[in-house]
Amino acid sequence: MEFMLDARLAESSHLTATIEGVQVRLADDARYVWLLLVPEQNDISELHDLADADRRALLDLANELGVWMKTRFGADKINTAAIGNVVAQLHLHVVARHAGDAAWPAPIWGLGEPQPRTSDSRAAMMADITKFLETRSV
Amino acid sequence: MEFMLDARLAESSHLTATIEGVQVRLADDARYVWLLLVPEQNDISELHDLADADRRALLDLANELGVWMKTRFGADKINTAAIGNVVAQLHLHVVARHAGDAAWPAPIWGLGEPQPRTSDSRAAMMADITKFLETRSV
Repeated sequence: MEFMLDARLAESSHLTATIEGVQVRLADDARYVWLLLVPEQNDISELHDLADADRRALLDLANELGVWMKTRFGADKINTAAIGNVVAQLHLHVVARHAGDAAWPAPIWGLGEPQPRTSDSRAAMMADITKFLETRSV
Repeated sequence: MEFMLDARLAESSHLTATIEGVQVRLADDARYVWLLLVPEQNDISELHDLADADRRALLDLANELGVWMKTRFGADKINTAAIGNVVAQLHLHVVARHAGDAAWPAPIWGLGEPQPRTSDSRAAMMADITKFLETRSV
């Protein structure tokens, strides 16, 4: 069955790459560098709903992105979270946080209104992420 | 060097078990079933600061606890997160969430004041968790 992305994830983020069955999506919010990793599997809401190998691959991908984001964006902290109380479809957040950012030190979810990126900012960020993903060693 | 637990983690949670170098701690907040997993390693703040094997073992343990918590407490959602913007020492949250709980559907962090458990409630919960950890297959 074709993968059906939740409409709220589709509207609030942009598909940047698909890595081994996982969508890497850029959240459309200029306040943060905020990625969503979404396995292309229907009817999955918990990390533990994934097969072990799929879950570990997802978390390894999040880890690689976290390492890169911390350096690339000079982040003070990487926040990695599977929450999904509102949108049940499994999505793993990986967010580069900076002291003094719009939510700091609170978690970003549900705080204030997203500030959509300009098309130039979005394109540049997506190109940057794609370039990293193309050159990663795994 | 001896492991030094951050004082804020020590004050807000109770050591329930230590599994392969990871402290399983019960957050002292009766509003949720809320665990903290803390690797006994100093000077670690990011998941990616851990060696690959240690990180994967930590995440596998979180996964096992999430599976158990969802069933045992009839949770609607498990929230799993490494945030650490306030307390830098790496700690991974695993929280059993219920529709209508004190923060639902928002994330729990920073919302309202913790409600300390009674000593009976705390002891019962810690015994329950310990029993699960003793019987797990891995």
